[in-house]
Amino acid sequence: MSDLSNSIIFPKGNKMPEPYKKYFIGQAYLEMLVPGDKEFNCPIGNVTFEPGCRNNWHKHPGGQILLVTGGRGWYQEAGKEARELKTGDIVKIPANVKHWHGAARDSWFVHLSVETNSQAGPAAWLEPVIDDEYSKLK
Amino acid sequence: MSDLSNSIIFPKGNKMPEPYKKYFIGQAYLEMLVPGDKEFNCPIGNVTFEPGCRNNWHKHPGGQILLVTGGRGWYQEAGKEARELKTGDIVKIPANVKHWHGAARDSWFVHLSVETNSQAGPAAWLEPVIDDEYSKLK
Repeated sequence: MSDLSNSIIFPKGNKMPEPYKKYFIGQAYLEMLVPGDKEFNCPIGNVTFEPGCRNNWHKHPGGQILLVTGGRGWYQEAGKEARELKTGDIVKIPANVKHWHGAARDSWFVHLSVETNSQAGPAAWLEPVIDDEYSKLK
Repeated sequence: MSDLSNSIIFPKGNKMPEPYKKYFIGQAYLEMLVPGDKEFNCPIGNVTFEPGCRNNWHKHPGGQILLVTGGRGWYQEAGKEARELKTGDIVKIPANVKHWHGAARDSWFVHLSVETNSQAGPAAWLEPVIDDEYSKLK
């Protein structure tokens, strides 16, 4: 198992804080690289997922970009097949599309998260990705 | 010399196209990861500089974020000392601050560029960083 526990490019940060922690299964870490203030209007975080960790289904009212910097993981939109993600992959998540992302069962996973059009408001968090769904992904 | 000629995380793309090419000394490469459209309002490019390559002094009316993914380079704001950059460094460039960035003389340099508040308009390009200034940087 590739150990990305110290992240390999950008700082790993601390354990996912509240209020986000409760929307994750497993342990994730967050370092905010650019805060969500008005000056740049573009919050950027470095998110590190331990193997098996994933977030709940959710939607971003202004969209989100994921830039994968290490490990192996998954991205899934509601009603579609999950997409395998690896270093160098980009995901463009349109506004209000229900989705989740997280690590593979056997790998750490690290991505930058760029929140676009952040003036549209915060994410709407929904139900967890249950083990029956997640365990199908190899 | 660390050879990052294939970039190490995100795609290297093609030689810097016009109209940007004329604002660089030396060879740079650009892959637009997220286009500058209205959907995400947040153009993201991967920029790779050959050793010795740097851009002209310039200003962004909406600001810019640099996320360094490989190599060694420099960032300088007008009237300040140049700041050495390495993998994992973040630069937050406020709107309308005159600056330049580029590779060290002996290293490739790769950063993501996130244009913030892109509705404010395109960069204003100014004079080159002359050899006398650049050659002082080790």
